[in-house]
Amino acid sequence: MFRNNYDNDSVTFSPQGRIFQVEYALEAIKQGSAAVGLVSKTHAVLVALKRNAEELGSYQKKIIGIDTHLGVALAGLAPDARVLSNFMRQQSMSSRLLYNRPVPIARVVNAIADKAQVNTQHYGRRPYGVGLLVAGVDETGPHLWEFQPSGMVLEYRGAAIGARSQSARTYLERNFEAFPDASREELVLHGLRALRDSLAQDKELTTANVSLAIVGEGEKFKLYDGEEVADWLEKLGSTQSSRGSRGAQAAAAPAGASGSGEGGDSMEVDA
Amino acid sequence: MFRNNYDNDSVTFSPQGRIFQVEYALEAIKQGSAAVGLVSKTHAVLVALKRNAEELGSYQKKIIGIDTHLGVALAGLAPDARVLSNFMRQQSMSSRLLYNRPVPIARVVNAIADKAQVNTQHYGRRPYGVGLLVAGVDETGPHLWEFQPSGMVLEYRGAAIGARSQSARTYLERNFEAFPDASREELVLHGLRALRDSLAQDKELTTANVSLAIVGEGEKFKLYDGEEVADWLEKLGSTQSSRGSRGAQAAAAPAGASGSGEGGDSMEVDA
Amino acid sequence: MFRNNYDNDSVTFSPQGRIFQVEYALEAIKQGSAAVGLVSKTHAVLVALKRNAEELGSYQKKIIGIDTHLGVALAGLAPDARVLSNFMRQQSMSSRLLYNRPVPIARVVNAIADKAQVNTQHYGRRPYGVGLLVAGVDETGPHLWEFQPSGMVLEYRGAAIGARSQSARTYLERNFEAFPDASREELVLHGLRALRDSLAQDKELTTANVSLAIVGEGEKFKLYDGEEVADWLEKLGSTQSSRGSRGAQAAAAPAGASGSGEGGDSMEVDA
Amino acid sequence: MFRNNYDNDSVTFSPQGRIFQVEYALEAIKQGSAAVGLVSKTHAVLVALKRNAEELGSYQKKIIGIDTHLGVALAGLAPDARVLSNFMRQQSMSSRLLYNRPVPIARVVNAIADKAQVNTQHYGRRPYGVGLLVAGVDETGPHLWEFQPSGMVLEYRGAAIGARSQSARTYLERNFEAFPDASREELVLHGLRALRDSLAQDKELTTANVSLAIVGEGEKFKLYDGEEVADWLEKLGSTQSSRGSRGAQAAAAPAGASGSGEGGDSMEVDA
Amino acid sequence: MFRNNYDNDSVTFSPQGRIFQVEYALEAIKQGSAAVGLVSKTHAVLVALKRNAEELGSYQKKIIGIDTHLGVALAGLAPDARVLSNFMRQQSMSSRLLYNRPVPIARVVNAIADKAQVNTQHYGRRPYGVGLLVAGVDETGPHLWEFQPSGMVLEYRGAAIGARSQSARTYLERNFEAFPDASREELVLHGLRALRDSLAQDKELTTANVSLAIVGEGEKFKLYDGEEVADWLEKLGSTQSSRGSRGAQAAAAPAGASGSGEGGDSMEVDA
Amino acid sequence: MFRNNYDNDSVTFSPQGRIFQVEYALEAIKQGSAAVGLVSKTHAVLVALKRNAEELGSYQKKIIGIDTHLGVALAGLAPDARVLSNFMRQQSMSSRLLYNRPVPIARVVNAIADKAQVNTQHYGRRPYGVGLLVAGVDETGPHLWEFQPSGMVLEYRGAAIGARSQSARTYLERNFEAFPDASREELVLHGLRALRDSLAQDKELTTANVSLAIVGEGEKFKLYDGEEVADWLEKLGSTQSSRGSRGAQAAAAPAGASGSGEGGDSMEVDA
Amino acid sequence: MFRNNYDNDSVTFSPQGRIFQVEYALEAIKQGSAAVGLVSKTHAVLVALKRNAEELGSYQKKIIGIDTHLGVALAGLAPDARVLSNFMRQQSMSSRLLYNRPVPIARVVNAIADKAQVNTQHYGRRPYGVGLLVAGVDETGPHLWEFQPSGMVLEYRGAAIGARSQSARTYLERNFEAFPDASREELVLHGLRALRDSLAQDKELTTANVSLAIVGEGEKFKLYDGEEVADWLEKLGSTQSSRGSRGAQAAAAPAGASGSGEGGDSMEVDA
Repeated sequence: MFRNNYDNDSVTFSPQGRIFQVEYALEAIKQGSAAVGLVSKTHAVLVALKRNAEELGSYQKKIIGIDTHLGVALAGLAPDARVLSNFMRQQSMSSRLLYNRPVPIARVVNAIADKAQVNTQHYGRRPYGVGLLVAGVDETGPHLWEFQPSGMVLEYRGAAIGARSQSARTYLERNFEAFPDASREELVLHGLRALRDSLAQDKELTTANVSLAIVGEGEKFKLYDGEEVADWLEKLGSTQSSRGSRGAQAAAAPAGASGSGEGGDSMEVDA
Repeated sequence: MFRNNYDNDSVTFSPQGRIFQVEYALEAIKQGSAAVGLVSKTHAVLVALKRNAEELGSYQKKIIGIDTHLGVALAGLAPDARVLSNFMRQQSMSSRLLYNRPVPIARVVNAIADKAQVNTQHYGRRPYGVGLLVAGVDETGPHLWEFQPSGMVLEYRGAAIGARSQSARTYLERNFEAFPDASREELVLHGLRALRDSLAQDKELTTANVSLAIVGEGEKFKLYDGEEVADWLEKLGSTQSSRGSRGAQAAAAPAGASGSGEGGDSMEVDA
Repeated sequence: MFRNNYDNDSVTFSPQGRIFQVEYALEAIKQGSAAVGLVSKTHAVLVALKRNAEELGSYQKKIIGIDTHLGVALAGLAPDARVLSNFMRQQSMSSRLLYNRPVPIARVVNAIADKAQVNTQHYGRRPYGVGLLVAGVDETGPHLWEFQPSGMVLEYRGAAIGARSQSARTYLERNFEAFPDASREELVLHGLRALRDSLAQDKELTTANVSLAIVGEGEKFKLYDGEEVADWLEKLGSTQSSRGSRGAQAAAAPAGASGSGEGGDSMEVDA
Repeated sequence: MFRNNYDNDSVTFSPQGRIFQVEYALEAIKQGSAAVGLVSKTHAVLVALKRNAEELGSYQKKIIGIDTHLGVALAGLAPDARVLSNFMRQQSMSSRLLYNRPVPIARVVNAIADKAQVNTQHYGRRPYGVGLLVAGVDETGPHLWEFQPSGMVLEYRGAAIGARSQSARTYLERNFEAFPDASREELVLHGLRALRDSLAQDKELTTANVSLAIVGEGEKFKLYDGEEVADWLEKLGSTQSSRGSRGAQAAAAPAGASGSGEGGDSMEVDA
Repeated sequence: MFRNNYDNDSVTFSPQGRIFQVEYALEAIKQGSAAVGLVSKTHAVLVALKRNAEELGSYQKKIIGIDTHLGVALAGLAPDARVLSNFMRQQSMSSRLLYNRPVPIARVVNAIADKAQVNTQHYGRRPYGVGLLVAGVDETGPHLWEFQPSGMVLEYRGAAIGARSQSARTYLERNFEAFPDASREELVLHGLRALRDSLAQDKELTTANVSLAIVGEGEKFKLYDGEEVADWLEKLGSTQSSRGSRGAQAAAAPAGASGSGEGGDSMEVDA
Repeated sequence: MFRNNYDNDSVTFSPQGRIFQVEYALEAIKQGSAAVGLVSKTHAVLVALKRNAEELGSYQKKIIGIDTHLGVALAGLAPDARVLSNFMRQQSMSSRLLYNRPVPIARVVNAIADKAQVNTQHYGRRPYGVGLLVAGVDETGPHLWEFQPSGMVLEYRGAAIGARSQSARTYLERNFEAFPDASREELVLHGLRALRDSLAQDKELTTANVSLAIVGEGEKFKLYDGEEVADWLEKLGSTQSSRGSRGAQAAAAPAGASGSGEGGDSMEVDA
Repeated sequence: MFRNNYDNDSVTFSPQGRIFQVEYALEAIKQGSAAVGLVSKTHAVLVALKRNAEELGSYQKKIIGIDTHLGVALAGLAPDARVLSNFMRQQSMSSRLLYNRPVPIARVVNAIADKAQVNTQHYGRRPYGVGLLVAGVDETGPHLWEFQPSGMVLEYRGAAIGARSQSARTYLERNFEAFPDASREELVLHGLRALRDSLAQDKELTTANVSLAIVGEGEKFKLYDGEEVADWLEKLGSTQSSRGSRGAQAAAAPAGASGSGEGGDSMEVDA
């Protein structure tokens, strides 16, 4: 398709009222590995896939703690996520300093949303190239939000972003009714199952490629990595995989989407 | 049609004196789901269609409360609406602080209009990509205004914006004489009927896709969502639908307009 | 005609010394509905046509009061007119505060003219897309000025702007000698007759499409709308129409000009 | 002729060292009606042609008083002339305030020249589109200067700018030796004759199309318009016209130049 | 491949969500000579290849000391590296001044990462054209980080950047398990072997082309150059080369990569 | 020759390392009339040709006095020269105020050179379109400098700029050895002879087209114009012309160069 | 070769990671005449070729003294060199004022390098178009540095820049081992021989085209010009020329390089 002149910056509408640069930023998210979030009445959980695991180095962080009651999972440009995370940390510290309380989740989420919107309406900047799942607990209980480069933020019971995340979303849609009353353990397992569904056919969740974070009422945000997730994977193994029913559909996934995993080297998407 | 050079920014007139970027911004509004507003001598009502209802998450807000006497319904880019809403909230708070009174509706509406006009006359910004219906009550009674990205604001007895809103507008035009003296309940039902007329042929208003807000003299702005609208829909069901007379025309609606509902994924229009 | 490169901004002269963007701005004025102003030794009068009258909503204001001795009629982009009106109001308030007198008409007119000229000589802005007729009374008596986007302002005995305003101007040219000594009533009727001549063949002046404002020595600026103009129209009806002699010429008007009335939906020209 | 890339702004030299935008600005001057200035040992005189005289309105000012000892005639964009005039007025007021004397003519002329030069060397502005004849009297006697958009200013014994001004200049060149010792009346008549020579074949100087201003030692700058110039025209009528000898040449003037008078509607050149 | 319009600045996403200018900056790194870093439980080591050794002049620095506990190796544009190094030095001095301690490695690394990210999201700058390996020791022990122009930073056990660095990385991947418990000497030898593997087939490590730096717990950052590395090379010589197994693969390296060594004259890559 | 993209602003090098806009600025100088400067052990002299002498007006100044010990001759855009002259005057006044001495010639020359260089290295400005010969006397004796738009300044014993100045330069090269010990009168005559050699074949130096300025040790900078140069021309007449030997070469001068004299009307080069 | 879009400013990487504008700036250096620098244990020497020697004027300075312990030789755009020299002088003065010592050579060299790097990473400026050889003596002995427009600076034992400097560099490479222990006289002769090798076949070093500067421990920076270099040239004459062995190679030099000497007129390269 020929799109002339309308897709070079984020301050130009196309004749159809679209802002292509914002849409292109979403593509950067799709090149990041998958992340899943979900929330019960007592807990919020983030699980994420670490891609291109290299033994030599640390993984690109997929989950970042912001405060004791708050953290994010990301898909897309990691440096952009770091900038947004730092901003959230400042907001959180300000709240503790000025109001002597942890920042409410909705407030900090709206703060980054407003920050992101500016980049879609002023010349000379580009939209953030990263999506975030924000999980936290505040006076009104546990919350899960999704942030997008457009400045759109929505609260979810369960959400998934990144490469092949549609499969994870399908799992969440089928099981979300169980989330509110799920125990801490059940909630994590739901998350892992959803994440597992986003894997390519020949991949499995391992201690090497899974990051996991839990925050709850009375439980501080904590990130589990490497051997720390072994117990969870073991419990997951003893549960039934939904992969059988997913196989055909995954096989039918377009090669491009599946192949985006290898593209990680050319651009610093989180992987 | 070939439009060379004149539609890339909002500071360039076409040879016919048009500003295409402002017109393109109107297209973003048309991609949002429909919203309807109407006003009687005692009340102002907003009803809106929540599109792409997903069980996993919250709906993109179609109606936003600004103050106890004031709220907006939106169609178009939700992040732009949030920015404008926040600005209205600041105006409202200032009024209470400085003048010890709720901000007059006309004043706050003109404030966002001026803010929007700036983006149509200075390089390096884009017009807001959202339309608003502003409903409120002040010392001069209930009011309904429509805001457009051009910075144009007009007061209406009844108004409709968003996808397929022409059908809703037709309903309003046929019935507006009854609005001034309508009771609170009648006014809401008029709004729901207008909204129902904007639905595609095979859709119905449900507790899942309707948002509703009422503000009146002596009644604070209140948003009704989900089960809270069940009673209203029940009452609506027992009234006669105007859909029969509308059918042929709706069926003739261009596929593109009807299909814009599915387009919600590619851009953050409110849906 | 091919005009390459010279018509994209208002800081570039064409090889013939023209500034096309300023000329294009004049086109926006022509898309607004007609407005007429005229002045006698004692009064200044503005009459204007409200276009696309919709029963649902208020009309886009065609006449705006600035101060008790001063008001404007507009044709073109309404939001631009609002910005200029607000600016005039500030000038007027400043005059009362600082000099304890109503601002002289010529002074406030030159103020907006200078403001407009800046937009024709600095990059990154566009010319205002609106023409104004400014009517007021000051220590030197009643005055009528026309303002154009170029920053040009001229004082007139009678003037007309907007769609099909040439016909109104023809009426004014034929009758202007009677204006100075016309009574308040005669002056208004002259204005209405001129405005009537700008109507399309099959249209008539009605309480629904006429706005009218009068300011005079000892008479504050007052706007008459809707039923308030009924008396005037009745008086007008009993006078002889000049339409007979105008018919052929109006019929010969280009379809485009006549059809611009329907174009009001695509751009926020005043209508 | 194809001029690629070098004529879009005033900060780019052509390969031949020309700045086309400045040259194009001169074209705007040629579209204004003619103005003539001349100076004797005791007086300086400005005469100018008011074009497109419309009975409805005031003429676009061709001559503007700046101070009691100083005024200008203009050809080109009237709003630009107003901006420069205002600037000269400020300079003049400053001089009276700070130095307690009328501003020297050369000083104020150089001030606008420097102001104009800036617009020919910095990006984002355009050259002024107007030429000025500045006439004034200071401690060193009467002076006449010509100002051009390039920032060039030169002192003259007699000068002419605007449409068809070459004919006026020819008159001045033939008669300039008589200027220094001319009486006040003779000087004005020389000016009118020069101006008359710039008229198209079928036009005459009338009280309706001539503006005239005189400033002298002991005589404050005064503008004569309308009936005030009747006496001068009467005296002129009794003198011999040089038009006979000019006829053939004027008839041979290119249609474009002659026709530029009608072009006044499309752009706000002074007319 | 034709990439239209999306690769001219770092504030434009391609339709696939890529930022080409950032990717092009990575190419500048690949044109620099190789650098290798690795870390044990007690030490961090940097080794680097000095290219185009010219007897006349000093080598372009490949390793730069920042503070007594901290230094960097670079590949790419040397002037950009100097700017970043100076910035790191300031950070380090600030830390000592304000907090009376050496700056933590992670903190200073994140500081340059944030600085670099800004250049990828704001118009009018270019991304830094250099990669860095940061080696240091702080309260949490020895660390090695890699910095990229995108603003991405990752901690590694062993890392290699610059021309032909893939071969070095292969060595590191095969031997990294030995690094944590390696002695100071063993660690250096691992580094030199990895670096040696990045050489073209007919080159050898010599005192003329190797730079080496060591920092450890209780051992300040120290750079070894020229004859100072002779002992290390001697020890290396007595160890077994892995080049045999590498030969075929190196021979198969694209001529372009191998030839980039000669390209050093046209651009100031570090060499 | 096709020069794509490299000649539109002064901040872009061509692939050959040239800055075309600076070179184009030199062309503006060549369109000005010739100016010659020369210096002895006791005096510095400037002579210049006033072109397009018009009886009606003053000549465009070719020589401008800056201070009692300092003046300039110019070729090129006169308004640019005025700006630079004013700047030199400020420098000179500052020197007298701050250091109580006339500004040293080299210092003021370097000040304008630096000012000019900025315009060749920063976007949004254009190089000055004028060349200057600066003649002055300070504590180190008489000096002559040439200033160019590139910001280059060089001291000369004799120099010539402007149209056909090569012929003048040839004279200077043949006679410069006589300058140091030349008397005041001889020096002037050398200058006039050089200037005469730059005339077209059929032109002569006259009191109408020659400007002349002298400054010396104990002799303040003084400009001679019109009848004031009559004595000098008389003395020149009695000396032998070098035109005979120059004839053929001048006749062979390209028509374009010779014709540039008539081009003075289209652009405000000094003439 | 076609290089589209990547070579117009210094903030755009080419797909190969090159910054063409910086490379083009190097071309400006190659158009300057040659300069040579070299350093012993006690002295640093600069020698340079003055090109296009004109008897009328001073030479464009090829060597500039900065302070008593410091000076530079330049090749490329002389005005850029002057700007950088002034900056170095300020640095030097600051050092004396603040620290009461001559500025260390490395420090002042890095200061201009950082200044130059900024112009390669920020939009709206161009890289400096000049190369410098910086010779000086500080507490650590004599030093020679080369500065390039990229912001790269390297210390050398001997270095050569400018037109045909490769031949000089070849001489330096063959003889550099003798430099450290060379006497003051020997060092100068080495420099002159190297410079002589950069001459075209039919040129010789003369008192008219050689500039020379010496600085040493206990010997202040001093520039020798004209007759001051006669002694040195005499001594050189009695030494054996290396030109015989160089002839063929020089003859084979591309005409373009050799011809660049005549190109000095079109652009203000140092010559």
